[in-house]
Amino acid sequence: MTTYSPPSTALLTDHYELTMVQAALESGEADRRCVFEAFSRRLPDGRRYGIVGGTGRFLDAVESFRFGDDELRFLRDHEVVDDTTIDFLAGYRFSGHISGYAEGECYFPGSPVLVVEASFAEGVVLETLALSILNHDTAIASAASRMTSAAGDRPCIEMGARRTHEEAAVAAARAAYIAGFRATSNLEAGRRYGVPTTGTAAHSFTLLYDSEREAFTAQVTSLGKGTTLLVDTYDVRQAVDLAMEVAGPALGAVRLDSGDLLSQAQEVRAQLDAAGNRDTKILVTSDLDEYAIAALAAAPVSGYGVGTALVTGSGAPTASMVYKLVARENGSGELEGVAKRSKDKKSVAGRKWAMRRRNEHGVAVAEVVGVGEAPRNDGDDRPLMTQLVRDGEIVGREDLAAARDRHAAARAELPPAATQLSRGEPVIPTIYEEHR
Amino acid sequence: MTTYSPPSTALLTDHYELTMVQAALESGEADRRCVFEAFSRRLPDGRRYGIVGGTGRFLDAVESFRFGDDELRFLRDHEVVDDTTIDFLAGYRFSGHISGYAEGECYFPGSPVLVVEASFAEGVVLETLALSILNHDTAIASAASRMTSAAGDRPCIEMGARRTHEEAAVAAARAAYIAGFRATSNLEAGRRYGVPTTGTAAHSFTLLYDSEREAFTAQVTSLGKGTTLLVDTYDVRQAVDLAMEVAGPALGAVRLDSGDLLSQAQEVRAQLDAAGNRDTKILVTSDLDEYAIAALAAAPVSGYGVGTALVTGSGAPTASMVYKLVARENGSGELEGVAKRSKDKKSVAGRKWAMRRRNEHGVAVAEVVGVGEAPRNDGDDRPLMTQLVRDGEIVGREDLAAARDRHAAARAELPPAATQLSRGEPVIPTIYEEHR
Repeated sequence: MTTYSPPSTALLTDHYELTMVQAALESGEADRRCVFEAFSRRLPDGRRYGIVGGTGRFLDAVESFRFGDDELRFLRDHEVVDDTTIDFLAGYRFSGHISGYAEGECYFPGSPVLVVEASFAEGVVLETLALSILNHDTAIASAASRMTSAAGDRPCIEMGARRTHEEAAVAAARAAYIAGFRATSNLEAGRRYGVPTTGTAAHSFTLLYDSEREAFTAQVTSLGKGTTLLVDTYDVRQAVDLAMEVAGPALGAVRLDSGDLLSQAQEVRAQLDAAGNRDTKILVTSDLDEYAIAALAAAPVSGYGVGTALVTGSGAPTASMVYKLVARENGSGELEGVAKRSKDKKSVAGRKWAMRRRNEHGVAVAEVVGVGEAPRNDGDDRPLMTQLVRDGEIVGREDLAAARDRHAAARAELPPAATQLSRGEPVIPTIYEEHR
Repeated sequence: MTTYSPPSTALLTDHYELTMVQAALESGEADRRCVFEAFSRRLPDGRRYGIVGGTGRFLDAVESFRFGDDELRFLRDHEVVDDTTIDFLAGYRFSGHISGYAEGECYFPGSPVLVVEASFAEGVVLETLALSILNHDTAIASAASRMTSAAGDRPCIEMGARRTHEEAAVAAARAAYIAGFRATSNLEAGRRYGVPTTGTAAHSFTLLYDSEREAFTAQVTSLGKGTTLLVDTYDVRQAVDLAMEVAGPALGAVRLDSGDLLSQAQEVRAQLDAAGNRDTKILVTSDLDEYAIAALAAAPVSGYGVGTALVTGSGAPTASMVYKLVARENGSGELEGVAKRSKDKKSVAGRKWAMRRRNEHGVAVAEVVGVGEAPRNDGDDRPLMTQLVRDGEIVGREDLAAARDRHAAARAELPPAATQLSRGEPVIPTIYEEHR
């Protein structure tokens, strides 16, 4: 299993998490047993389902959540918190429990995607990091899932590194892979997470040479006839002829990166077929999103390279998850539900469990969230929460392959309307079962 | 000066950059002298100007662009490139020149934001990393600049870490600071870049306690009367009374995070004033963007905490910059302009220089881009390109304070229409002066 140990993640944290710890330590409430929950009040505008991403990265990040000398020195020098708090942070090791939705799982409004049970101080300091990771990776996985759904059996290749922060790019490639992308252009995602990497060539490569012929010849000589030649630097028709002349019938693929991709793909396919290059594939790129992919369903293309739209969540670059205190020990030592009372940002108090209710055909019909205890399983239902951390020990690590399989199965289980691209409501309702 | 050395950035790179190097090495063209240029064909939809961000981070990343044993092992084990290329990469040190727009500078369509002059192999492998950094940081700086403009003299505080990738959050805090934000919630941005950090408290802190009174008392006792109390967990009016009772007239601020911020701020201000808390400030948060900030201009608030909209570029999460080969050595050893010939993605061939043309009052009137040589200075004009790397040596490092000052000056120099929030055209035209 590939695990990645980032450098200390402790300062990837909002200032106020630590000052709250200080105040709670001083008042004696820092040790109260608490339950925090990460969830989203809504799906991105018009989406029918979301896909959880980031759980695995969060587990790596929790393991690296250590305040070393450098981190403590910064906090001391800048008087962020007092010495008592510095001492507490110096010894910080998360010792509680975490459960939640495994990566690749579908989620809906109110799904308790992550449930952290710990003392207030131990749980609150993970808020920023948990949300950063879940909000980013979930946004990408959710967009990616719509793209792979629109692409059907054709592969989607993630090529968006250049359109997002360089580290976000690595996480985006990972999230896209979970949601069914075949490969990525991002080498670090290959090294860190084992995502297959691939690539073609850029216009600069063709322009480097005195002629397109020299460029194609150089590429085929060095990378083999199975390579993908970029054919829209000058004239597409001439370039396709040239590509076939240089590589012959074994040419792997040509790439189109501009213009009307549908009509061009048809013309290029006819040109390739007429010359006997029936096995040469056509890869299209150029600002594709799920809608453009769907619009190319009838085009003779073999794969989609997706960049900007993928790494920016196709209009929803963040998943709007929040991390809320939903229960805490009361004076009698019992867990008691708590919630903010504002009109526009409702939360449901109490610890949650979740189940996907399925009908007798195995089709999802509701997201059932049990408040206070787990909802009753009707037999066809599928429990959704998995143990991720027990007594501070990470127990929920898994291969990306498992997350990838889960995504495919969970999406397939949704009603067919889930994969409609048009705007709509969540494809299944969220039902709360309150046990008080 | 704060410099940050990231771990090796070499694999934050697209697969095809390295296979292009392989093919170019084998064909003997890898050493051709080339000029690559990063620019954007357009501003984000409806924006009137953009702000360059990321230049400083790019310089740090170039310095860390080294293929060490781990990086080379991955490339070898996964057969990304051949042994000759592995050897080339093992010795990779950028030895060329880089110039460009300094951070905080305004840019427009076609502005040559970064110009890299090097061999093809040395220059092409920086493409992905340069674009990742520039596209992200520029998107954030551009959005941030509109927010600080809308906020006028009132401070904007960056609080978006939880809504974006955890490392993107650090870069976002930095970019926002350049574009006039006063502080950030992000501790790592404080440590790494010296951005001032600050914070208030979350609803979870209030909910931890058996009563709001206990929560406020704990916070004021530990953090002092100058702290900011969050007053919308239960009833705002009662909370404000309680806050004044607990902290007295020295209470620093109250924070509103939900509801109709304008009317609530008016009510709270009246309540504070009536009780003699004239110096207690009101900080507002809750999905603010530049439009919401502008709408609160008449509200009695003292500052804005901005999260989601800032870190997602307020609708434009990436800056659409591209990195193009614009010139390369020809057979006679002279630089020759090159460009792709596609209809929908036009590029202007040739090396560029840029100047901001100003009228006699010092107001910007045009972005003048000289092709082939620098444009002529009319006397009132301001050259825009600065040397960043000379013969591989980084010479363009600067303090964030310098970038912050540059932003303020460059924005002030634009025509007044620049800071209108309504959609429009770039506030000054880009004029090409061709020298052939």
